[in-house]
Amino acid sequence: MTATVHPIRPNREPAPSLQPLLNLVAGDMNEVNRCILERMQSPVSLIPALAGHLIAGGGKRMRPMLTLACARLLDYAGTRHHKLAACVEFIHTATLLHDDVVDGSGLRRGKETANLIYGNPATVLVGDFLFSRSFELMVEDGSLRVLKILSHASSTIAEGEVDQLTAAREIETTEDRYLDIISAKTAVLFAAACQIAAVVAERDDKTEAALESFGRNLGIAFQLVDDAIDYVSDADTMGKSIGDDFREGKVTLPVILAYQRASEEDRLFWRDAVSGRAAGDEELARAVELLKSSRAVDDTLARARHYGSRAIDALAHFPNGPARAALTETVEFAIARAY
Amino acid sequence: MTATVHPIRPNREPAPSLQPLLNLVAGDMNEVNRCILERMQSPVSLIPALAGHLIAGGGKRMRPMLTLACARLLDYAGTRHHKLAACVEFIHTATLLHDDVVDGSGLRRGKETANLIYGNPATVLVGDFLFSRSFELMVEDGSLRVLKILSHASSTIAEGEVDQLTAAREIETTEDRYLDIISAKTAVLFAAACQIAAVVAERDDKTEAALESFGRNLGIAFQLVDDAIDYVSDADTMGKSIGDDFREGKVTLPVILAYQRASEEDRLFWRDAVSGRAAGDEELARAVELLKSSRAVDDTLARARHYGSRAIDALAHFPNGPARAALTETVEFAIARAY
Repeated sequence: MTATVHPIRPNREPAPSLQPLLNLVAGDMNEVNRCILERMQSPVSLIPALAGHLIAGGGKRMRPMLTLACARLLDYAGTRHHKLAACVEFIHTATLLHDDVVDGSGLRRGKETANLIYGNPATVLVGDFLFSRSFELMVEDGSLRVLKILSHASSTIAEGEVDQLTAAREIETTEDRYLDIISAKTAVLFAAACQIAAVVAERDDKTEAALESFGRNLGIAFQLVDDAIDYVSDADTMGKSIGDDFREGKVTLPVILAYQRASEEDRLFWRDAVSGRAAGDEELARAVELLKSSRAVDDTLARARHYGSRAIDALAHFPNGPARAALTETVEFAIARAY
Repeated sequence: MTATVHPIRPNREPAPSLQPLLNLVAGDMNEVNRCILERMQSPVSLIPALAGHLIAGGGKRMRPMLTLACARLLDYAGTRHHKLAACVEFIHTATLLHDDVVDGSGLRRGKETANLIYGNPATVLVGDFLFSRSFELMVEDGSLRVLKILSHASSTIAEGEVDQLTAAREIETTEDRYLDIISAKTAVLFAAACQIAAVVAERDDKTEAALESFGRNLGIAFQLVDDAIDYVSDADTMGKSIGDDFREGKVTLPVILAYQRASEEDRLFWRDAVSGRAAGDEELARAVELLKSSRAVDDTLARARHYGSRAIDALAHFPNGPARAALTETVEFAIARAY
């Protein structure tokens, strides 16, 4: 790692990690996990079996951790955020289950996906169950403001997912449209996860807005790095192999930038690849080459750093302390994953 | 139609119809339809296109009509029920979209299903959108009681659908289990649609319970008749051809009763049919014969009349008048569809 590829913390070693965040919320997270396990139960045993496959499947639980850390940032002393953090994770899990059906993917975090094991019908319906259960939990909490934020987040996610489907294999997708899509399908839930902490802590609109901005910018950075990683990572660290997006014809920002900067001949190559006419190992090697020569991955990461910086600056609203430090390092970690 | 097959209104002609209900709620229904059309919009054009295919596709809008009629029964003079009736229809529509994906069916109400035209991925995601949008509308209304009733209904529906999937092609399904499944997947939304009218009209728990009971029993009767119709109706009236359930190996009450009453030889036939090993036209003809000789369809309809009677008796709580008469005739219509 050098200063050029990671300018946010140029002078500090070791590499940023998720550990400060994990430490900060460890106690609260036990409560959230208890709630998740308790509330994913059902007399219909296929529901906890299928939901548990994904929920116990080694996800980082980033979104609920953000709710907890933001509550800590505000010195919130109650317990409402435990249930609401579980809501956020249920919405996320429901989305992942439906995503796996939509993508027809077979691997997530290095494990077989639920739809591969249990089939598409059960996966769709258990997603629906978790989604409904999430709303039941919110209603138990009883805050209409939280309900508004999370129901709006849910419909925006669905809108973003449909939009992404419409843009699938569409090589002419612009950077603006791509940003709209990832803002909807990814960043909105990060934003909501953070914002609801301000609601339970009964803080003012300015505080809500600052946390919303922090979460939204972190979410965009997170997704941009994910999309870059697909062309640089290896299967050991990410649980997915390099080139998954390429093989599925996904038009992510690295591809958009490379295509925009390409010669006519190379554009032909990208069109064939994204359409699925030619997207094998040989083409993947050429794609990685073109992404490198056009600096498309580097610039995707530069965009990610931009949103990461905005996320960190949104925290200027809050006093220094372990919570702010942990959230700051979480942003740095999100970016540093690519290096 | 004779007194023996339709004992609820033995002395009255013409046949019961949905017309009194349609007349009762016509004005309100225009408002609901306006709300449905307005709130299914999205900048992502695939969403209104796909949702509109089903929403404009000639459904009866039974559930929102029930909300409106129950509000009328209570002399409710406000307008909150318009938006909430739209919520109920959105939940129902989302469920139908996901059902079509789960069943892999190609026809609904005589039209091609959305998943056949737009594909499974878009159908799953637009279902998610409508479901989320429904919660956004509820939150706008702002009643936590309504939110509780409808979020609980949603998770119960999903639970029932997963349970049904678990019971698929399971010839040993008992009548009790079957009733649990249809109570969850169908009757709960009928019940909720009626119950929320009491909430907006600010009536007491007894009134809520009476409307819940009316809707629940009507819902069960409705589903039982649907299941019977699959073995007696013709494609012109129902938009689906006879034997659809049979060909899909669905174990509905007519099959459960016929199997329980069958000889060992006939049980073998049912096992082969439900497993899908032998479920062609010839087998369908034999199934219809066995259902007739065992009186399984007749007795399914007798069960439906039982729940229909209970629904009508739940209305005893309310004063006579056009709303009560229309709701009573709606139950009679639901039953009479089979004759």
